[in-house]
Amino acid sequence: MARTNRRWLLAERPTGMVGPEHFRFDQVPVESPGPGQVLVRSLWLSLDPANRAWLAPTPTYKSAVQPDEVMHGFALGRVEESGDPRLAPGDIVSGMLGWQDYATLPVAEVHKEPAGRDPRHAMGVLGVTGLTAYFGLLEVGQPKVGETVVVSAAGGAVGSIVGQLAKLAGCRVVGLAGGPEKCRWLEQELGFDVAIDYRAGNLRRAMKAACPDGIDVYFDNVGGDILATALFLMNERGRIVACGNLSQYNAERPAPGPMGVPGLVVVKRLRIEGFIVTDYYDRRAAAEAALTRLLASGQLKAVEDVVEGLEKAPATLVELFQGRNRGKLLIKVA
Amino acid sequence: MARTNRRWLLAERPTGMVGPEHFRFDQVPVESPGPGQVLVRSLWLSLDPANRAWLAPTPTYKSAVQPDEVMHGFALGRVEESGDPRLAPGDIVSGMLGWQDYATLPVAEVHKEPAGRDPRHAMGVLGVTGLTAYFGLLEVGQPKVGETVVVSAAGGAVGSIVGQLAKLAGCRVVGLAGGPEKCRWLEQELGFDVAIDYRAGNLRRAMKAACPDGIDVYFDNVGGDILATALFLMNERGRIVACGNLSQYNAERPAPGPMGVPGLVVVKRLRIEGFIVTDYYDRRAAAEAALTRLLASGQLKAVEDVVEGLEKAPATLVELFQGRNRGKLLIKVA
Repeated sequence: MARTNRRWLLAERPTGMVGPEHFRFDQVPVESPGPGQVLVRSLWLSLDPANRAWLAPTPTYKSAVQPDEVMHGFALGRVEESGDPRLAPGDIVSGMLGWQDYATLPVAEVHKEPAGRDPRHAMGVLGVTGLTAYFGLLEVGQPKVGETVVVSAAGGAVGSIVGQLAKLAGCRVVGLAGGPEKCRWLEQELGFDVAIDYRAGNLRRAMKAACPDGIDVYFDNVGGDILATALFLMNERGRIVACGNLSQYNAERPAPGPMGVPGLVVVKRLRIEGFIVTDYYDRRAAAEAALTRLLASGQLKAVEDVVEGLEKAPATLVELFQGRNRGKLLIKVA
Repeated sequence: MARTNRRWLLAERPTGMVGPEHFRFDQVPVESPGPGQVLVRSLWLSLDPANRAWLAPTPTYKSAVQPDEVMHGFALGRVEESGDPRLAPGDIVSGMLGWQDYATLPVAEVHKEPAGRDPRHAMGVLGVTGLTAYFGLLEVGQPKVGETVVVSAAGGAVGSIVGQLAKLAGCRVVGLAGGPEKCRWLEQELGFDVAIDYRAGNLRRAMKAACPDGIDVYFDNVGGDILATALFLMNERGRIVACGNLSQYNAERPAPGPMGVPGLVVVKRLRIEGFIVTDYYDRRAAAEAALTRLLASGQLKAVEDVVEGLEKAPATLVELFQGRNRGKLLIKVA
């Protein structure tokens, strides 16, 4: 019984905006796992802005995707066959399964998921996304009651959680998002104090008006102009959580950095800190428990945007960069 | 007996390189102190790169110097008359006395110096300069044994102490300075592992060769190209101590920021942190004690560069930016 593995390979490295033409679909027989390996059926695939960064020729916090390699992607799946006593068929696991129906990989490269969770939550608010928001905001940003927190890409997977957590922490919360509808949604559904449509122009004036007491924490998902503008509005000893650089992932040429570095950093004693969520995984259980409680009490809303079908992965990634999703963008693979 | 106060006023705000033409010398009668004030005779005036930043129209961590105002400067002096019981004639104090022979100012604006110290040490290694190096390197940079520390403007007042402290902390120490002679001095007299002449070209290659294991802590006094290059060589979870922006203080136009912000900051989980030494003054006594011990044991060398005469202040500030000083640059006023 030869099963078929449908998969998306990187056909050609994009130099500017990523498009469907950079990927190639193919089908191969499913590989059985060897000793120490597992065969995993992908169920839910996460699409994230960082996926684009992995396509650049230089490695990021992980190795770059190579042409003719299966596109990398974080996913949740079910163990089908196991060559290792630590996992059994039926176990739910997450890991870098890639853009494919089946992954055959070392057991050490997957994480066994607790039973009984909604898989969409496991991939979103209780997974990498939620933990990124949680540790990035609370540990790196260290917001205090009454402070002003600004978050960019506020309608995205991480940003929508950052904003809600910052409200729960007693802060004034200002979000930046694309388009008036998404901004209304952030204010009316997610409780942001102000949402700014960054495409509407007059960014600096709008941000200044939304932050009459300046910015204490800027959670940066985008870099570029918004970071440069935030730097001017930061208060003394303010913190910038460097989580992403979305505005530059599709740039053909590297942009210069923000003018305020290092001048304003020195003068205002700012801290800019990059982080990767896995660095905080020794405290993962406590964070998951906190997020689970907030979800259960209704204080935190999980926002997921589900697209059905692995075949739609490339087109959906492009839509991500057009800002069409709200919250966590997931492909339902099976 | 009307005493005369010689002083340097800001004649005109410089837009590019500061020159003697931006200052005006004049003489006025000495003002007697009112209640709560002291009259201080300046003895030693500190010249620092930050003096240039204070001449920009926008305030830094302190207010900008205004035209026709006495040029701001940190100095050490002797109380001549006191209108407050907390200070008596003969007391040695430091504070923002300005570029003048006599300052009349509120007693709260000066700091009483401990007795028996060499005044040059009080202005250098045991004063703002040494404390900046101490807290910046140890608290913000947090170097660990075996790590690589890079410091720019390594021959300057702060840099020459940072390098020595980093060696004492068990680190490989690489300094950047202008000219082969200063570099030799850093290696032979101050114990730097490698000193790089940043004017010699091939900066990136030279820094890479000097840091075979990458950079863990970059103590940045200069911003500009050296910061941009350091960002590329930083190790994961490296720390950049944003202390100064010397390369830009005389720039006519603000330069773009370094290309690696925020991209490399995210990918490598870097921390860039600005600081002002006064934020750490609650622990000033402990730091002074540590520096005093290191000086006494000969483990730390105090390097002072003394120019005699208040009249030479403007020309000497210009020379500072030409890189002619070694260590702490002081004007002996009286």
